[in-house]
Amino acid sequence: MSLINEHFLLLSNNYLFSEIAKRVNAFKADNPHRKVISLGIGDVTRPLPEASIEAMTRAVREMADTRTFRGYGPEHGYDFLIEAVIRNDYLPRGVKLSPAEVFVSDGAKSDCGNIGDILSTENSIGVTDPVYPVYIDSNVMCGRAGTPTADGWSNVIYMPCTAENAFKPQIPNRHIDLLYLCYPNNPMGVVLSKEELKQWVDYALANDSIILFDAAYEAYIQDPAIPHSIYEIPGAKKCAIEFRSFSKTAGFTGVRCGYTIVPEELTAATKSGERISLNRLWNRRQCTKFNGTSYITQRGAEAIYTPEGKAQVKQTISYYMDNARLMREGFAKLGIEAHGGENAPYIWLKTPQGLSSWQFFDKLLTTANIVTTPGVGFGPSGEGYVRLTAFGRKEDCREAMERMCSVG
Amino acid sequence: MSLINEHFLLLSNNYLFSEIAKRVNAFKADNPHRKVISLGIGDVTRPLPEASIEAMTRAVREMADTRTFRGYGPEHGYDFLIEAVIRNDYLPRGVKLSPAEVFVSDGAKSDCGNIGDILSTENSIGVTDPVYPVYIDSNVMCGRAGTPTADGWSNVIYMPCTAENAFKPQIPNRHIDLLYLCYPNNPMGVVLSKEELKQWVDYALANDSIILFDAAYEAYIQDPAIPHSIYEIPGAKKCAIEFRSFSKTAGFTGVRCGYTIVPEELTAATKSGERISLNRLWNRRQCTKFNGTSYITQRGAEAIYTPEGKAQVKQTISYYMDNARLMREGFAKLGIEAHGGENAPYIWLKTPQGLSSWQFFDKLLTTANIVTTPGVGFGPSGEGYVRLTAFGRKEDCREAMERMCSVG
Repeated sequence: MSLINEHFLLLSNNYLFSEIAKRVNAFKADNPHRKVISLGIGDVTRPLPEASIEAMTRAVREMADTRTFRGYGPEHGYDFLIEAVIRNDYLPRGVKLSPAEVFVSDGAKSDCGNIGDILSTENSIGVTDPVYPVYIDSNVMCGRAGTPTADGWSNVIYMPCTAENAFKPQIPNRHIDLLYLCYPNNPMGVVLSKEELKQWVDYALANDSIILFDAAYEAYIQDPAIPHSIYEIPGAKKCAIEFRSFSKTAGFTGVRCGYTIVPEELTAATKSGERISLNRLWNRRQCTKFNGTSYITQRGAEAIYTPEGKAQVKQTISYYMDNARLMREGFAKLGIEAHGGENAPYIWLKTPQGLSSWQFFDKLLTTANIVTTPGVGFGPSGEGYVRLTAFGRKEDCREAMERMCSVG
Repeated sequence: MSLINEHFLLLSNNYLFSEIAKRVNAFKADNPHRKVISLGIGDVTRPLPEASIEAMTRAVREMADTRTFRGYGPEHGYDFLIEAVIRNDYLPRGVKLSPAEVFVSDGAKSDCGNIGDILSTENSIGVTDPVYPVYIDSNVMCGRAGTPTADGWSNVIYMPCTAENAFKPQIPNRHIDLLYLCYPNNPMGVVLSKEELKQWVDYALANDSIILFDAAYEAYIQDPAIPHSIYEIPGAKKCAIEFRSFSKTAGFTGVRCGYTIVPEELTAATKSGERISLNRLWNRRQCTKFNGTSYITQRGAEAIYTPEGKAQVKQTISYYMDNARLMREGFAKLGIEAHGGENAPYIWLKTPQGLSSWQFFDKLLTTANIVTTPGVGFGPSGEGYVRLTAFGRKEDCREAMERMCSVG
């Protein structure tokens, strides 16, 4: 009798974004003439940088000619992209990486989900509350999250982020093996200073923990003092894996490209205490269960590092950050407490009048026809908040703020 | 202390294709003026179909304009591609599928590797010997393969394929939970008739087994009586998952696209005997740990189903199959026993004079400067064979055969 992986049955069937879609679709069906504006899901709306378009058009053409056609590429990505990443994303910040430490992939979501393959399912997990659901769900699937408890999972340690701690988790006072950190943060829009990030690296080094650092939104950092990479902190190469994405930087949500850094000096232990290189294990995982990212896509990603590409990316980021500013200023005028949106594309909005996340979600949907994401969907400490994204069209953002002003 | 997944340490570091690369590179370094012809790795050399090139060029252009830009696509693929797959690859063969049964991905290798996520690690595994190494290695990584034994893995049942059984495995006389079958076969180049495949489906239905059917090479079938899909066999939807790929059909090895069929009526059990839909579990897996395939790539794949695309794909397949014919005829003249190459792009060559796989590999490399793949690298029953692929350039194939004739 063939058996299923029963851990899957522990997962909730009510996925946050499908519940949102259900409510939005019901509202639209009842109100076909209302224009609904989505500030809910974190998907981009601006086109790809022209430099990427040109590079991808050329790459497609190369695939049409026997002399320039490319078949299987390296599982870990082409050197031209890996070298561009090292030279542009890391060297200017004082971080030296070898090409073997950079693994190009089809996106940070895949890598965040798959990285667990190389780690024992016995490791304990620490996550912020609220948190991006993929970190937890992928651990539930392989059994690492443990069993459901009254308020979470038996093997997951939740680190609450509330107004009291400025939405930044306290350093744990107990041992945790694997720590998921995402900065700039989704959903709360906050960032960590170098000093704050250093405390986490120090904790990880002292506890022999591994930090899984999701830096998918680093391009939105405006403050020059904020670190973009965890490797800007001394010692981080001994304790951290970093996930990066071209999705929010260059609009690649539908093109699919990201990369993951697994430093050569990063090790974890066998039960008998032997230290094993995680770089070697991740390389073996990727060579066996992945076959590289599209050559065309990789050429598109490489192009964002050209002078034109850089300027075009900067323009797109400015467009979105201008949306964020517009929203922040609007909420200030309305007297609604709003966080984030200064170094991140997310705004974390306190619900007014003590409304719950879902109550405020419903109110905004029905009165102002605006879609948000209920904060409680990211974890219990998100109750009383909704998340707004700055990835919309400027005219929609402006209209959304006007509607909010008029409904009050 | 963070722990690694120790199953990874059981994997051999000597990956077949890296050992080949090592020997080839050493030979080239010693003989810089010899032209080495590779008939080893199964990578394509013909350019993409012009229909795909045009479709991808248009799709790239769409991504440059706000009005046609596409962000996140559906995790399981766009309807336009799913519908083209159903209408062209299945309906003409009498197989009806619903769109929810088709999962577009970045390739069959990823899906073959990841499918284990939804199945218990306690299931026993059956594989042909010789076999595509990913089936076994991905099961070693998650512990399902068990522990190494003198001649394999404790939880893997090997089904020898030798000249005695015409390279087709016997139906097992014991219970196996998960069966990996690949037809047209890599590496042996053989196919199964409808009657033969029916025996496997009947076995799986009687034993409550799941067949993981890798049909990546179905486009190479020339004999109209040979089934392209396992679902051509009645009952297969209750016991089989099918993997398909655009890699060898349309030259997408570097573009990355495939799809996996998980029928809605396919179930496996919990330990308490409850039947669970595998379609639902795979959908949850993909939504959590995958974010869809590039929109541009999917447009390229869709284009192979246009009349022009179909004609172009047919031409490419004919080119490769003509290589296969050329090689088979050459070996017949030379009096070397060769199998496959009639409905598959692989030729399974008996080594002459009782040479081992690696001895013949070395002989061909050093005397004729031809790279093959030693059969023993695919499993012990592959000893005494080498695999040749038909994916090379015609002129190289022809020259390789001439060299073989002259070295004798």
